Amino acid sequence: MAKFGFLGLGIMGRAMATNLVRAGFEVVVWNRGADKCRPLAELGAQVAASPREVVAACPVTIAMLADPAAATEVVFGAAGVLEGLAPGKGYVDMSTVDDLTAQQLSAAVIDRGGRFLEAPVSGSKKPAEDATLVILAAGDEGLYRETQPAFEKMGKKTLYLGAVGQGARMKLVVNMVMGVMMAGFCEGLALAQQGGLDPQQLLEVLDAGAIANPMFRLKGPNMLKGDFAAHFPLKHMQKDLRLAVAVGDELAQSLPAAAAANETFKRARALGLGEADFSALLRAVLGEGKRC
Amino acid sequence: MAKFGFLGLGIMGRAMATNLVRAGFEVVVWNRGADKCRPLAELGAQVAASPREVVAACPVTIAMLADPAAATEVVFGAAGVLEGLAPGKGYVDMSTVDDLTAQQLSAAVIDRGGRFLEAPVSGSKKPAEDATLVILAAGDEGLYRETQPAFEKMGKKTLYLGAVGQGARMKLVVNMVMGVMMAGFCEGLALAQQGGLDPQQLLEVLDAGAIANPMFRLKGPNMLKGDFAAHFPLKHMQKDLRLAVAVGDELAQSLPAAAAANETFKRARALGLGEADFSALLRAVLGEGKRC
Amino acid sequence: MAKFGFLGLGIMGRAMATNLVRAGFEVVVWNRGADKCRPLAELGAQVAASPREVVAACPVTIAMLADPAAATEVVFGAAGVLEGLAPGKGYVDMSTVDDLTAQQLSAAVIDRGGRFLEAPVSGSKKPAEDATLVILAAGDEGLYRETQPAFEKMGKKTLYLGAVGQGARMKLVVNMVMGVMMAGFCEGLALAQQGGLDPQQLLEVLDAGAIANPMFRLKGPNMLKGDFAAHFPLKHMQKDLRLAVAVGDELAQSLPAAAAANETFKRARALGLGEADFSALLRAVLGEGKRC
Amino acid sequence: MAKFGFLGLGIMGRAMATNLVRAGFEVVVWNRGADKCRPLAELGAQVAASPREVVAACPVTIAMLADPAAATEVVFGAAGVLEGLAPGKGYVDMSTVDDLTAQQLSAAVIDRGGRFLEAPVSGSKKPAEDATLVILAAGDEGLYRETQPAFEKMGKKTLYLGAVGQGARMKLVVNMVMGVMMAGFCEGLALAQQGGLDPQQLLEVLDAGAIANPMFRLKGPNMLKGDFAAHFPLKHMQKDLRLAVAVGDELAQSLPAAAAANETFKRARALGLGEADFSALLRAVLGEGKRC
Repeated sequence: MAKFGFLGLGIMGRAMATNLVRAGFEVVVWNRGADKCRPLAELGAQVAASPREVVAACPVTIAMLADPAAATEVVFGAAGVLEGLAPGKGYVDMSTVDDLTAQQLSAAVIDRGGRFLEAPVSGSKKPAEDATLVILAAGDEGLYRETQPAFEKMGKKTLYLGAVGQGARMKLVVNMVMGVMMAGFCEGLALAQQGGLDPQQLLEVLDAGAIANPMFRLKGPNMLKGDFAAHFPLKHMQKDLRLAVAVGDELAQSLPAAAAANETFKRARALGLGEADFSALLRAVLGEGKRC
Repeated sequence: MAKFGFLGLGIMGRAMATNLVRAGFEVVVWNRGADKCRPLAELGAQVAASPREVVAACPVTIAMLADPAAATEVVFGAAGVLEGLAPGKGYVDMSTVDDLTAQQLSAAVIDRGGRFLEAPVSGSKKPAEDATLVILAAGDEGLYRETQPAFEKMGKKTLYLGAVGQGARMKLVVNMVMGVMMAGFCEGLALAQQGGLDPQQLLEVLDAGAIANPMFRLKGPNMLKGDFAAHFPLKHMQKDLRLAVAVGDELAQSLPAAAAANETFKRARALGLGEADFSALLRAVLGEGKRC
Repeated sequence: MAKFGFLGLGIMGRAMATNLVRAGFEVVVWNRGADKCRPLAELGAQVAASPREVVAACPVTIAMLADPAAATEVVFGAAGVLEGLAPGKGYVDMSTVDDLTAQQLSAAVIDRGGRFLEAPVSGSKKPAEDATLVILAAGDEGLYRETQPAFEKMGKKTLYLGAVGQGARMKLVVNMVMGVMMAGFCEGLALAQQGGLDPQQLLEVLDAGAIANPMFRLKGPNMLKGDFAAHFPLKHMQKDLRLAVAVGDELAQSLPAAAAANETFKRARALGLGEADFSALLRAVLGEGKRC
Repeated sequence: MAKFGFLGLGIMGRAMATNLVRAGFEVVVWNRGADKCRPLAELGAQVAASPREVVAACPVTIAMLADPAAATEVVFGAAGVLEGLAPGKGYVDMSTVDDLTAQQLSAAVIDRGGRFLEAPVSGSKKPAEDATLVILAAGDEGLYRETQPAFEKMGKKTLYLGAVGQGARMKLVVNMVMGVMMAGFCEGLALAQQGGLDPQQLLEVLDAGAIANPMFRLKGPNMLKGDFAAHFPLKHMQKDLRLAVAVGDELAQSLPAAAAANETFKRARALGLGEADFSALLRAVLGEGKRC
């Protein structure tokens, strides 16, 4: 079986690396806090002392880091990825980073003779554990094929989307559609509530028809209970809507429903809901003091 | 087994009545054009010469008519439903009618001592044939319970929603959510296309994630082919959005995403797409001369 | 000088009739509450006991009534306009009524051999007193010419717009533009305020440039003081936006800015601002608990 | 009388410098193409060979340059402003630049001991010639007072708005309000046209009422003629709307009307109208092939 490096064992990374070890791959892991490596070691992973060591030891290294700052530090920092790179080595960044960061990481890796693939995912903790992530890969196509066996053990669907940047862009488009759907869902719940219908019955009708989907099914009941514990924070969804609308601006693509949804998400932020789940948009749609 | 009258054997009505006959109910049918009664007769249904005869012969009569005008004519016209009514008789209108028509039919039936239930459906030809309609009933609750055995053979889900008018209102809310989703979907496809992504891959990503739903799955591929043969005409979706926004107006419920979607659907109408499927909204979103 | 009947001596009507008397016309007035006729009588107007008497006594009668109900009652009621009509008589309704009411009044007057002109005005108490109303006339063109001398003493601008209904429609279009402007104005004030600019300085800048206008100049300072005493109630502006968007719907004319403004006005209504001046929209735009 | 340097003699700068010379100030001018200096010299201005010479010769130097690139080059380039600076010298940039550029210029000038004021203007060629510009100053308050006599000869209104950046921000807010007004104006014209009213009459009604303003008055007739020769290019207005909405995003200030207007302006860009006057938005609002 192939050998993969894995950098970053947070909520997502730990689940993904675990799936790789269980699938029988030889896996070399590293995490900023070393204690998070222990459960992986117990499953059979090797533990390295730095990103450099991981990259030096493996033909392909996968990273799943918290944010652009962490993704950048791991590559450019002391004992980082660049120090371990040699011609032909592959580096696959599955973190969610902005376009500029992705381009900088790609350029630095390629500059050292390495190969780069961005591969952000759609899905959070549960799909990571269940290996049902959707993986949006873009960059070096040979590296994509080489990493495919690992992707198959982490996700249910992997797509190759072209040049570096297109993975992140695809994720943005998907989240934009999701944001508009959430806006429509909240407006429907609010209209039902104000119009004397039982929002619980609306959930049942929606779930029985052509627009039934896991998001409505999973979030709907919590929304009616007023439970907005964050799975995907509202401020992040609003940021993605803003970025998607900005891409539309660059391309002269008018996006009126996304722009309208974005303004309501902004209003939700102003109401102090930025850290809540993005389904807390319902509060902003209903208006002050109203509940479903 | 119970006995039901059934008025209207168009595309929907024929499938629904067939399911009732096949389920073993005694069914008395009528249709404006008598030839449409033959296939039902061959399956074992009795054929009556007028709505009056059907109503006179059955404790509960179900109607599935093309539009408010037909629904009104069948009740108020010569040899119509009112002439056959007697105290205690039940009349269940499953046609899609506006609120005013529903109130007029209800009042007329109750005035003659009858009982009235509106029961519009969510779903079109295929769900009617497969008995997977979603039935949104409102009005006389005793009549609802009495008709339940028949509803179970025509749909997969039946809800009782309260006073006459709430069935139609629920349908409006559902269609509003659907319209906003379609707007978000079209904007996503257009942004993908303009941004150098493969819209086909967007369909795959969407179908693998938390917002996967039958509408995107079934309509998406046709939309990319430019096939907009009408299942649900765009002008009807736009009308439902307009009516939903109007209900929001009445209730002081702000619906910015629905309003934005409505304006794009209006623009699609102005582009001559009113008779096409409502997924032809994609054309208006993409703009003149562009294709996915 | 010509002779005119005048029905309705409310805030607007009294000022308008006064201007006619002062201009030297022979004026016959009537008002539901007779005491309001006294000041006019003192200026030289004749007082009649009913609309019928006014119409019988004058070749052209002008009406300025509070609402569609009053406008209808005065025409159709006992001792009303219709009873006084004779072939060739002119009836000019300057009240603000809906399209349906205008059509009904017009048909009834014409049916009795009379001539009908609708002539709603743009402007409220102050312009009525100052004879600076804008008069939007539509209907019988000969009657329009005959009434022109009176219009000139009540307004600064009179336009003939075509068939009955076009006067009301023009007023709707104007109010729609005004509503969108108010939305843009409020968003600008809110953005200035949130962005550390002095909203008072924004008023100065706006008033010095290409978009300087009386509405910003007059309402701006009160808005910053939080004074929203109603000149034009917010709920009426929202109603006009709704009706304008509905006309756009009928004509397949997409109106995205008006629709967005309308949704914010609806939110303002939900916040309990319906009876306040329409400039209270600022409160809804700023959000709960914020002030300029 | 005081002495001022003046850099940049384009359409705007030439008119502004001319007004300073005519007012009796001692003015030292420079322009990249020296021939543009001649008319000023004939009026009595001194001509310098570089920005450095101007700054060395004058206590306060005013710049009016075409864009951020030119504004940056003049300061940082060879024989540029920085080379002529000495402690206490004042530099007043009246060009329209982005926030980042303003901050960089300010920092560089202050770093050399100079004082910096940004002073973008509202108004174009005609107001520059007529000395009716609106000047939005921000930065060094002492320098603002010192330059006040010159501002008074170039504009009809000057405001001091606080720290560097607030001048540009105020201009953005003003342009945002203008963009929303234009959207409302175009929707009104389109609705009038589609609804059988004469758009020319709408212009008359608007000009007689509470929202009468120079922009509608000046642009309206050209818009109806289809004359969209650029005074302020549509793509620049759209950029300002985008930036204003982005500021709203940063501040969590929801701006639904501005966002809706922005999406229509984007659609106009996609229709190839970016270089036309921003009033060409009318084309996008009316839709393909329709004219007022």
